[in-house]
Amino acid sequence: MENHQKGNIFSLLPKKLDREAFEPIVAHDHVVIERIVSRGHRSPETGWYDQKSNEWVMVLAGRATIVFENGQEVRLEKGDYVNISARTRHKVTWTDPGVETIWLTVHYG
Amino acid sequence: MENHQKGNIFSLLPKKLDREAFEPIVAHDHVVIERIVSRGHRSPETGWYDQKSNEWVMVLAGRATIVFENGQEVRLEKGDYVNISARTRHKVTWTDPGVETIWLTVHYG
Repeated sequence: MENHQKGNIFSLLPKKLDREAFEPIVAHDHVVIERIVSRGHRSPETGWYDQKSNEWVMVLAGRATIVFENGQEVRLEKGDYVNISARTRHKVTWTDPGVETIWLTVHYG
Repeated sequence: MENHQKGNIFSLLPKKLDREAFEPIVAHDHVVIERIVSRGHRSPETGWYDQKSNEWVMVLAGRATIVFENGQEVRLEKGDYVNISARTRHKVTWTDPGVETIWLTVHYG
Protein backbone atom coordinates (compact mmCIF):
# COMPACT_ATOMS: atom_id res chain seq x y z
CA MET A 1 0.00 0.00 0.00
CA GLU A 2 1.16 3.53 -0.67
CA ASN A 3 3.38 5.05 1.97
CA HIS A 4 2.78 8.73 2.54
CA GLN A 5 6.04 10.60 2.76
CA LYS A 6 5.71 14.09 4.11
CA GLY A 7 7.84 17.00 3.00
CA ASN A 8 8.38 20.46 4.45
CA ILE A 9 8.23 23.62 2.39
CA PHE A 10 10.84 25.35 4.61
CA SER A 11 13.32 22.46 4.70
CA LEU A 12 16.28 21.44 2.57
CA LEU A 13 16.81 24.87 1.08
CA PRO A 14 19.40 24.84 -1.70
CA LYS A 15 22.86 25.78 -0.44
CA LYS A 16 23.82 27.50 -3.65
CA LEU A 17 21.45 30.04 -5.11
CA ASP A 18 23.41 31.29 -8.10
CA ARG A 19 20.10 30.90 -9.88
CA GLU A 20 16.59 30.73 -8.52
CA ALA A 21 15.73 27.15 -7.56
CA PHE A 22 12.58 25.64 -9.08
CA GLU A 23 11.55 22.38 -7.42
CA PRO A 24 8.47 20.46 -8.52
CA ILE A 25 6.35 19.04 -5.70
CA VAL A 26 3.39 17.70 -7.69
CA ALA A 27 3.21 17.33 -11.48
CA HIS A 28 -0.09 16.18 -12.92
CA ASP A 29 -2.11 16.60 -16.12
CA HIS A 30 -3.55 19.99 -15.35
CA VAL A 31 -1.62 21.12 -12.32
CA VAL A 32 1.98 21.65 -11.29
CA ILE A 33 2.80 22.57 -7.71
CA GLU A 34 6.27 23.96 -7.27
CA ARG A 35 8.54 25.53 -4.68
CA ILE A 36 10.71 28.42 -5.80
CA VAL A 37 13.57 29.74 -3.68
CA SER A 38 14.95 33.18 -4.51
CA ARG A 39 17.52 35.39 -2.84
CA GLY A 40 17.82 38.75 -4.48
CA HIS A 41 16.85 37.31 -7.85
CA ARG A 42 14.63 39.22 -10.23
CA SER A 43 13.34 38.83 -13.75
CA PRO A 44 15.52 40.01 -16.64
CA GLU A 45 15.41 43.76 -17.30
CA THR A 46 13.57 43.25 -20.57
CA GLY A 47 10.69 40.96 -21.41
CA TRP A 48 7.84 39.53 -19.37
CA TYR A 49 6.63 36.21 -18.07
CA ASP A 50 3.78 35.34 -20.43
CA GLN A 51 2.42 31.93 -19.44
CA LYS A 52 -0.05 29.59 -21.11
CA SER A 53 -1.45 28.42 -17.78
CA ASN A 54 -2.88 30.24 -14.80
CA GLU A 55 -0.67 30.63 -11.76
CA TRP A 56 -1.57 31.02 -8.11
CA VAL A 57 1.46 32.11 -6.14
CA MET A 58 2.09 32.62 -2.43
CA VAL A 59 5.15 33.90 -0.57
CA LEU A 60 5.81 31.85 2.58
CA ALA A 61 9.03 33.51 3.70
CA GLY A 62 10.99 36.55 2.57
CA ARG A 63 9.63 39.37 0.47
CA ALA A 64 9.08 40.02 -3.23
CA THR A 65 7.56 42.47 -5.67
CA ILE A 66 5.64 41.50 -8.79
CA VAL A 67 4.85 44.07 -11.48
CA PHE A 68 2.15 43.61 -14.09
CA GLU A 69 2.14 45.01 -17.60
CA ASN A 70 -0.52 47.54 -16.63
CA GLY A 71 1.93 48.98 -14.12
CA GLN A 72 0.33 47.50 -11.05
CA GLU A 73 2.90 46.62 -8.39
CA VAL A 74 2.10 43.93 -5.82
CA ARG A 75 4.35 43.52 -2.79
CA LEU A 76 4.24 40.09 -1.22
CA GLU A 77 5.28 39.08 2.28
CA LYS A 78 4.71 36.02 4.43
CA GLY A 79 1.35 34.47 3.58
CA ASP A 80 0.48 36.88 0.78
CA TYR A 81 -0.87 35.34 -2.40
CA VAL A 82 -2.08 36.53 -5.78
CA ASN A 83 -3.69 34.81 -8.74
CA ILE A 84 -2.22 35.44 -12.18
CA SER A 85 -4.41 34.49 -15.12
CA ALA A 86 -2.88 32.89 -18.19
CA ARG A 87 -1.36 35.37 -20.62
CA THR A 88 -1.15 38.10 -18.02
CA ARG A 89 2.28 39.54 -18.49
CA HIS A 90 4.23 40.07 -15.29
CA LYS A 91 7.72 40.08 -13.84
CA VAL A 92 9.40 39.82 -10.47
CA THR A 93 11.18 43.15 -10.01
CA TRP A 94 12.60 42.47 -6.53
CA THR A 95 13.21 39.77 -3.98
CA ASP A 96 14.87 40.38 -0.63
CA PRO A 97 18.65 40.01 -1.06
CA GLY A 98 19.19 39.32 2.65
CA VAL A 99 17.06 36.24 3.12
CA GLU A 100 15.59 33.37 1.14
CA THR A 101 12.19 34.09 -0.37
CA ILE A 102 10.19 30.86 -0.48
CA TRP A 103 7.35 30.76 -3.00
CA LEU A 104 4.66 28.19 -3.48
CA THR A 105 3.16 28.23 -6.96
CA VAL A 106 0.27 26.27 -8.44
CA HIS A 107 0.11 26.29 -12.23
CA TYR A 108 -3.30 25.16 -13.45
CA GLY A 109 -5.72 25.05 -16.36
CA MET B 1 -7.45 45.67 -17.19
CA GLU B 2 -7.49 43.12 -14.44
CA ASN B 3 -6.59 44.39 -10.99
CA HIS B 4 -4.62 41.91 -8.93
CA GLN B 5 -5.95 41.76 -5.41
CA LYS B 6 -3.69 40.00 -3.00
CA GLY B 7 -4.90 37.92 -0.07
CA ASN B 8 -3.11 36.52 2.95
CA ILE B 9 -3.44 32.95 4.11
CA PHE B 10 -3.02 33.93 7.78
CA SER B 11 -5.46 36.84 7.74
CA LEU B 12 -9.17 37.19 8.41
CA LEU B 13 -9.45 34.01 10.39
CA PRO B 14 -13.06 33.12 11.19
CA LYS B 15 -14.12 34.36 14.62
CA LYS B 16 -16.40 31.42 15.24
CA LEU B 17 -15.08 27.95 14.69
CA ASP B 18 -18.02 25.81 15.76
CA ARG B 19 -17.24 23.92 12.60
CA GLU B 20 -14.11 23.77 10.51
CA ALA B 21 -14.04 26.64 8.03
CA PHE B 22 -13.58 25.76 4.34
CA GLU B 23 -12.81 28.79 2.19
CA PRO B 24 -12.21 28.48 -1.55
CA ILE B 25 -9.36 30.57 -2.92
CA VAL B 26 -9.27 29.33 -6.52
CA ALA B 27 -11.92 27.18 -8.21
CA HIS B 28 -11.18 26.04 -11.75
CA ASP B 29 -12.00 23.10 -14.03
CA HIS B 30 -9.43 20.71 -12.66
CA VAL B 31 -8.19 22.41 -9.52
CA VAL B 32 -9.60 23.82 -6.33
CA ILE B 33 -7.34 25.66 -3.90
CA GLU B 34 -8.82 26.06 -0.46
CA ARG B 35 -7.96 27.28 3.02
CA ILE B 36 -9.20 25.22 5.93
CA VAL B 37 -9.12 26.51 9.49
CA SER B 38 -9.48 23.98 12.32
CA ARG B 39 -9.24 24.27 16.08
CA GLY B 40 -9.50 20.94 17.80
CA HIS B 41 -11.70 19.56 15.03
CA ARG B 42 -11.31 16.01 13.83
CA SER B 43 -13.08 13.69 11.43
CA PRO B 44 -16.12 11.76 12.66
CA GLU B 45 -15.31 8.65 14.69
CA THR B 46 -16.57 6.36 11.95
CA GLY B 47 -16.01 6.53 8.22
CA TRP B 48 -13.22 7.90 6.05
CA TYR B 49 -12.62 10.70 3.60
CA ASP B 50 -12.72 8.94 0.24
CA GLN B 51 -12.26 11.54 -2.48
CA LYS B 52 -12.59 11.39 -6.26
CA SER B 53 -9.76 13.85 -6.78
CA ASN B 54 -6.19 13.94 -5.58
CA GLU B 55 -5.36 16.27 -2.73
CA TRP B 56 -2.11 17.97 -1.83
CA VAL B 57 -2.33 19.41 1.66
CA MET B 58 0.02 21.55 3.74
CA VAL B 59 -0.23 22.78 7.33
CA LEU B 60 0.90 26.41 7.63
CA ALA B 61 0.14 26.96 11.30
CA GLY B 62 -0.93 24.74 14.17
CA ARG B 63 -0.61 20.96 14.23
CA ALA B 64 -2.62 18.02 12.95
CA THR B 65 -2.56 14.26 12.55
CA ILE B 66 -3.82 12.40 9.49
CA VAL B 67 -4.36 8.64 9.60
CA PHE B 68 -4.61 6.46 6.50
CA GLU B 69 -6.60 3.28 6.11
CA ASN B 70 -3.41 1.21 6.19
CA GLY B 71 -2.75 2.54 9.68
CA GLN B 72 -0.05 5.00 8.74
CA GLU B 73 -0.15 8.11 10.92
CA VAL B 74 1.29 11.37 9.59
CA ARG B 75 1.84 14.28 11.98
CA LEU B 76 1.90 17.66 10.31
CA GLU B 77 3.35 20.90 11.65
CA LYS B 78 4.24 24.24 10.10
CA GLY B 79 5.30 23.75 6.51
CA ASP B 80 4.68 19.99 6.40
CA TYR B 81 2.81 18.68 3.38
CA VAL B 82 1.61 15.35 2.08
CA ASN B 83 0.04 14.20 -1.16
CA ILE B 84 -3.10 12.07 -0.96
CA SER B 85 -4.05 10.22 -4.12
CA ALA B 86 -7.69 9.94 -5.14
CA ARG B 87 -9.56 7.12 -3.40
CA THR B 88 -7.00 6.88 -0.63
CA ARG B 89 -9.06 6.67 2.50
CA HIS B 90 -7.91 8.90 5.31
CA LYS B 91 -9.12 10.92 8.26
CA VAL B 92 -7.95 13.75 10.47
CA THR B 93 -7.70 12.25 13.95
CA TRP B 94 -6.40 15.34 15.76
CA THR B 95 -5.88 19.06 15.40
CA ASP B 96 -4.40 21.25 18.12
CA PRO B 97 -7.24 22.45 20.38
CA GLY B 98 -5.22 25.43 21.63
CA VAL B 99 -4.52 27.24 18.39
CA GLU B 100 -5.89 27.57 14.88
CA THR B 101 -4.54 25.03 12.43
CA ILE B 102 -4.36 26.62 8.98
CA TRP B 103 -4.34 24.21 6.05
CA LEU B 104 -3.77 24.88 2.39
CA THR B 105 -5.24 22.22 0.15
CA VAL B 106 -5.04 21.76 -3.60
CA HIS B 107 -7.58 19.32 -5.06
CA TYR B 108 -6.63 18.29 -8.56
CA GLY B 109 -7.13 15.79 -11.36
